[in-house]
Amino acid sequence: MDYYSSQISRLIEQLSALPGIGSKSAQRLAFHILHMPEEDVKKLAESMTEAKKNIHYCKECLTLTDEELCPICRNMQRDHRTIMVVEDTRDLAAYEKTGKYEGVYHVLHGAISPMLGIGPNDIRLKELIHRLEGDVEEVIIATNSSLEGETTAMYISKLIKPTGIRVTRIASGVPVGGDLEYIDEVTLLRALEGRVEL
Amino acid sequence: MDYYSSQISRLIEQLSALPGIGSKSAQRLAFHILHMPEEDVKKLAESMTEAKKNIHYCKECLTLTDEELCPICRNMQRDHRTIMVVEDTRDLAAYEKTGKYEGVYHVLHGAISPMLGIGPNDIRLKELIHRLEGDVEEVIIATNSSLEGETTAMYISKLIKPTGIRVTRIASGVPVGGDLEYIDEVTLLRALEGRVEL
Repeated sequence: MDYYSSQISRLIEQLSALPGIGSKSAQRLAFHILHMPEEDVKKLAESMTEAKKNIHYCKECLTLTDEELCPICRNMQRDHRTIMVVEDTRDLAAYEKTGKYEGVYHVLHGAISPMLGIGPNDIRLKELIHRLEGDVEEVIIATNSSLEGETTAMYISKLIKPTGIRVTRIASGVPVGGDLEYIDEVTLLRALEGRVEL
Repeated sequence: MDYYSSQISRLIEQLSALPGIGSKSAQRLAFHILHMPEEDVKKLAESMTEAKKNIHYCKECLTLTDEELCPICRNMQRDHRTIMVVEDTRDLAAYEKTGKYEGVYHVLHGAISPMLGIGPNDIRLKELIHRLEGDVEEVIIATNSSLEGETTAMYISKLIKPTGIRVTRIASGVPVGGDLEYIDEVTLLRALEGRVEL
């Protein structure tokens, strides 16, 4: 890209390293940024570095947050005795968008995958088990309906069942192989309503 | 987005304001950024602010650059007597990718559009005319083949013809209504080879 001056080239290169951004989009984004007011570019750059600097896992549910407890765990209106287990923070956001789930969450930050060598100790399962010592009535497993998600669901249900706590799995309204994050609210709701005992 | 903590929400919001980035992509990007090493996030943020701070128009061809003269105008191997007129820096990049154009450029930063109230004085035409006082043999007009691009091409050719300098227009290999930036190298080359006298 020696037809662009070095700083433009570097910006395009770094943008195209982001997921879903090809070289054409990276160029488009770079020139958009170069045409933005300097103040807005600064704000965007600051949001990135600040968010990255302050981000950590919620003490309770392990979602990404910049506070000690995330807004959901802090909310005493929510039903803290129902825990929905998801693979990552974006899956949590997907269910929050339905606006109908009243419980709290637990973010595993991954799923068990023998293929990739990811075992139960590589995801945040220990923290979930620890939470069950409190006042918990139901654990809803909402991992993706992929092979890894199903394996994780089975593993968790076997782990929890002996404790007597109700363990459910979101219904198969979620298309097999689908990623929660990209599914419409209606399907997500149907899956929640049709959840079955494991 | 009150299920995300404030800094994450702000980042997602700012990312989704970028062109071609919907709310889903913005979330995906934000979480990707939050999972990147802090050093890389800093570098990306710096590239944005630095490029924005230092960017200006090349003294000669008016493309965006962070130096006084862009790499192309600085290159004495190029044929400075042939000037290709393009609408913006990305169109210049599109022709550079063919690797076969030896001349230099002139970036108009827009096109004449009576509909949008953009007249000849709103694009960088004066600077082009000024450049023609030097040693110029040919002006190749490579504005887009849109209504605005064609209008601009006609206007420029009428302006330059009395000077006796050769004025050409890239051939109609470029599909009508197409945007130079998205056209494959072969079509761009064919259009260059088939250019006709105006």
